[in-house]
Amino acid sequence: MALIRSVFQDELDSVSQSLVDLTEMVATSMTKATTAILSCDLKLAEDVISTDEKIDDYQHDIDSRIIDIIARQQPVASDLRALVTALRMGSDLERMGDLAHHVAKLARLRHPECAIPLELIQTVTDMGRVAVAITTKTGVVISTRNIDLAVETERDDDEMDDLHRQLIGYLIEPKWKYGIETAIDLTLLGRYYERYADHAVSISRRVYFLVTGKFAS
Amino acid sequence: MALIRSVFQDELDSVSQSLVDLTEMVATSMTKATTAILSCDLKLAEDVISTDEKIDDYQHDIDSRIIDIIARQQPVASDLRALVTALRMGSDLERMGDLAHHVAKLARLRHPECAIPLELIQTVTDMGRVAVAITTKTGVVISTRNIDLAVETERDDDEMDDLHRQLIGYLIEPKWKYGIETAIDLTLLGRYYERYADHAVSISRRVYFLVTGKFAS
Repeated sequence: MALIRSVFQDELDSVSQSLVDLTEMVATSMTKATTAILSCDLKLAEDVISTDEKIDDYQHDIDSRIIDIIARQQPVASDLRALVTALRMGSDLERMGDLAHHVAKLARLRHPECAIPLELIQTVTDMGRVAVAITTKTGVVISTRNIDLAVETERDDDEMDDLHRQLIGYLIEPKWKYGIETAIDLTLLGRYYERYADHAVSISRRVYFLVTGKFAS
Repeated sequence: MALIRSVFQDELDSVSQSLVDLTEMVATSMTKATTAILSCDLKLAEDVISTDEKIDDYQHDIDSRIIDIIARQQPVASDLRALVTALRMGSDLERMGDLAHHVAKLARLRHPECAIPLELIQTVTDMGRVAVAITTKTGVVISTRNIDLAVETERDDDEMDDLHRQLIGYLIEPKWKYGIETAIDLTLLGRYYERYADHAVSISRRVYFLVTGKFAS
């Protein structure tokens, strides 16, 4: 029995490690997507777009492994909850990859023009920075189950929401001179970053709940 | 053993029925949210907003029941896959409820003004109609596992995408006279309906995969 438990623990750890790998893949995509849209770099945008399938495949592979572990090990209680949570964290990460992909597609759509007006370069740079920081933190939360760090992602998310408000605030100022189409682009872009951070927070909340049995307040 | 199987089958059926109930709750929310935003009806918007928690609770309850079934019955192969798929369908439906909630919040935010200009009433009416139709169809797909109907939701989603393009197309016409803020509202609104339909399609694709073992093409 001790041996079986240990094999099971190894399998759980291996799933966790794969989820951490996935956070790194997603963070890389978001870093590149943000650079692509800020510097109007078509090649980089296409790099992100072509990577999205790899992220999806990697997540599907984690999913299959989790279902296989549940079928073979028939875990109950907290072990089963940890595996179901891992399934959900994989979905969140896959969706974060999609959102990085959306940012890159917007960069490609507007190329050779730049999607981001000069006055908003700093705001979008900051949104990209927060997005990558929260993803890296999420990876650490998955691997260490550190609940203080899990709670910290809520503050990163607040920062993202502030940046998002700042972005929308700029679009509706009377001095806005880039027209409706650019405003639409930036509205969607803001939404992508905001949702991206929401998914990262959702992962941290899942870990918090796994560890404490309570919802983060 | 026959008896255990039968109890298990009853439990699976009961989960399916609860998911169907959830599609009905979500469809009702989206119907009301669309009416609220089209007719600038604050009371109806608040009704949707206050219902969202019930949808979330209902989904959490389904989730707990599914995890409990997995723990007690220790299903393998296709039974386990069906339960994991049910977990995912619950998440999709919960997210669809969130998106109806977002539509209602936009109606409330703009009240007593109307968020939708006269020229776009028809397009938004159609988006609401398609959203509700695809949800109802999704309920039937969950309960009957009819794969032809599952494939049909892809066509509803195409219709939603066309309506979405029509909406954005209108915003960027030179004759647009409602300013940036309304354009931002409508960009987000369009995104909510589009994502809503995506989640419905995602449920249908999950059922298709469960039944055929293949991805819908």
